[in-house]
Amino acid sequence: MTQSSLSNWPPYNFSAGPAMLPKAVMDKAQQEFTDWHGTGLSVMDFSHRGKDFLSIAEKAEADLRELMAIPEHYKVLFCSGGASFQFATVPMNLLRNKAVYVDTGIWGKKAIAEASKYGDVSVISALEQENGLTSIQSESRWRLPDSFDYLHFTTNETIGGIEFPETPGVAKGRLVADMSSNILSQPINVEDFSVIYAGAQKNIGPAGLSIVIVREDVLENSVPEYVPSLMQYKLMAENDSMYNTPPTYSWYLAGLVFDWIKQQGGVAEMAKRAEQRSSMLYSFIDNSRFYSNPNLSKFRSRMNIPFILADESLNEKFLFEAESCGLCYLKGHRSVGGMRASLYNAMPIAGVEALIEFMQAFEQRNA
Amino acid sequence: MTQSSLSNWPPYNFSAGPAMLPKAVMDKAQQEFTDWHGTGLSVMDFSHRGKDFLSIAEKAEADLRELMAIPEHYKVLFCSGGASFQFATVPMNLLRNKAVYVDTGIWGKKAIAEASKYGDVSVISALEQENGLTSIQSESRWRLPDSFDYLHFTTNETIGGIEFPETPGVAKGRLVADMSSNILSQPINVEDFSVIYAGAQKNIGPAGLSIVIVREDVLENSVPEYVPSLMQYKLMAENDSMYNTPPTYSWYLAGLVFDWIKQQGGVAEMAKRAEQRSSMLYSFIDNSRFYSNPNLSKFRSRMNIPFILADESLNEKFLFEAESCGLCYLKGHRSVGGMRASLYNAMPIAGVEALIEFMQAFEQRNA
Repeated sequence: MTQSSLSNWPPYNFSAGPAMLPKAVMDKAQQEFTDWHGTGLSVMDFSHRGKDFLSIAEKAEADLRELMAIPEHYKVLFCSGGASFQFATVPMNLLRNKAVYVDTGIWGKKAIAEASKYGDVSVISALEQENGLTSIQSESRWRLPDSFDYLHFTTNETIGGIEFPETPGVAKGRLVADMSSNILSQPINVEDFSVIYAGAQKNIGPAGLSIVIVREDVLENSVPEYVPSLMQYKLMAENDSMYNTPPTYSWYLAGLVFDWIKQQGGVAEMAKRAEQRSSMLYSFIDNSRFYSNPNLSKFRSRMNIPFILADESLNEKFLFEAESCGLCYLKGHRSVGGMRASLYNAMPIAGVEALIEFMQAFEQRNA
Repeated sequence: MTQSSLSNWPPYNFSAGPAMLPKAVMDKAQQEFTDWHGTGLSVMDFSHRGKDFLSIAEKAEADLRELMAIPEHYKVLFCSGGASFQFATVPMNLLRNKAVYVDTGIWGKKAIAEASKYGDVSVISALEQENGLTSIQSESRWRLPDSFDYLHFTTNETIGGIEFPETPGVAKGRLVADMSSNILSQPINVEDFSVIYAGAQKNIGPAGLSIVIVREDVLENSVPEYVPSLMQYKLMAENDSMYNTPPTYSWYLAGLVFDWIKQQGGVAEMAKRAEQRSSMLYSFIDNSRFYSNPNLSKFRSRMNIPFILADESLNEKFLFEAESCGLCYLKGHRSVGGMRASLYNAMPIAGVEALIEFMQAFEQRNA
């Protein structure tokens, strides 16, 4: 198809994850791909126990600590695998009697299903409808058991496009959060949490790495014998995430991303940009009768914006034409259909502008 | 230091893993790092469910199947994490009553320690000394229990530098092998095995990925409830290794390596080169009184060649001067000391020639 009225943009990648990394990071990584800092070697080939990789690893951790203001009594782990591994690892390390899991969507449900294999899980089904829009139930109505080991929640649901506007006020210090899709997009208070974990492939780096931030006292928990060595937080912490060979290249890329965020102004600046990007798109959608988003304003995700076309028979046409214009991976998750624009830290404002321009033109031609 | 008599080589990386990848692969990956096949996007950013990544994933699997002649009734899995994860995953999926583990070194011992958490493990301590050299006990002397689920062995021990010259003749069809460090370096008969697994970071790709080749009937085993979803071979196979987001970029790089091996002439050619590289170095060491290798010729690894200096007080000097000449990561594993040269598929003959030239000159200056 040709769209003479539309710019021929550089491709913008709206994938929910694996997702785009900042252009400056990719350019730098490409430039030093086969020769890191004059060594003549690739970071990919470095021994994880050599001084070069250790300097990379340590800087990445230090930068992340600075960005998130992680206190000394929390360990930072760089683990293989994504958040789905942590769905099992968290209860293996923390669930002794009972845990509370807040369900706000598909990722919460997946975490619940996995945790239920390891102990007693009390579920708060916190999604509800308000005037036909999806929202998160007020904390005051959460029914918490008398005692529990931790309260798990998903800070942002990539599929439903639902985000907690702030950290819940309950169970402070015993919170465990899957922050895969909005980590580093706003300031948070790490001390509210026992454990924070995040798969890398949205705001951190490539798929196959996860970051775990765990308070030191949690490491004292004894774990059942069946827990694989690599899923024991204590063992991972004692070995500085190098009990086995870590995913070194992904760790390096994560470090480049952390450095980039620092240069941009830190997580406060990331929050500002996330607000700007998402407001632009929500505002356009809300002012249109052609597109709609199903969520209540207060709980709308700043990261993942699902939207549907009033005439769903146009879905394929929309996706085909969008991709032809360089707007990629806008298809909604297979479980919900429709469209989804993921706007992580790396997405420039120009990408959102391009998307809106396209959506506007598409509406005009098809309404 | 200056060594006017020695060439100023391009750096050669002798790391045991993460290890060097073929130069042609790195050059290609660098060239298409930010723009794969004209898409304007990086492979790293592709959704794992999009057609571009699926084409990459499928070609990688097809090429590996061709290279190793993997029969139809074996599944190929691309998993997060390295071989150490498989140390737990294998017994979780296969160990019901008793398993036999052959111990030929540190990696075998690690596999045994992890497996012992999941059931009855019968250990064959197969390392022995013959005329002061380390060798593997003859199979005829292995005491096997009457019945067992599988027999696990480590095809190549990277630390001790011990390699099985051929697949054991016992327990055919019930063998499970950790092939992390010599996979794709020689033809093998996949049908001898129930499971073959390998961490990527030696002969396949970057750290954080492992390849598992598993016979279909193994997938029918029921697994204990505590087994994390991502460690259930059946679930991984049913979802084509995409039950969760796989380490996509590593999978892509593995595919480039498989393609490169095909272009070079396949595993038969890799075997020829491995023989050539290792013979050159062993022969030099055996003809020297300054360097020595502790293993019996028949069981010497073609991949990892540990050697010690007659005067160990020269170790630091050797390593410093070697690195100054561009010969990197020659330090032996911290558990055994001395030196180690890892010569995986990607190591060119010129790298071995450079190492020998350096070793010769070092000997002349210090003997």
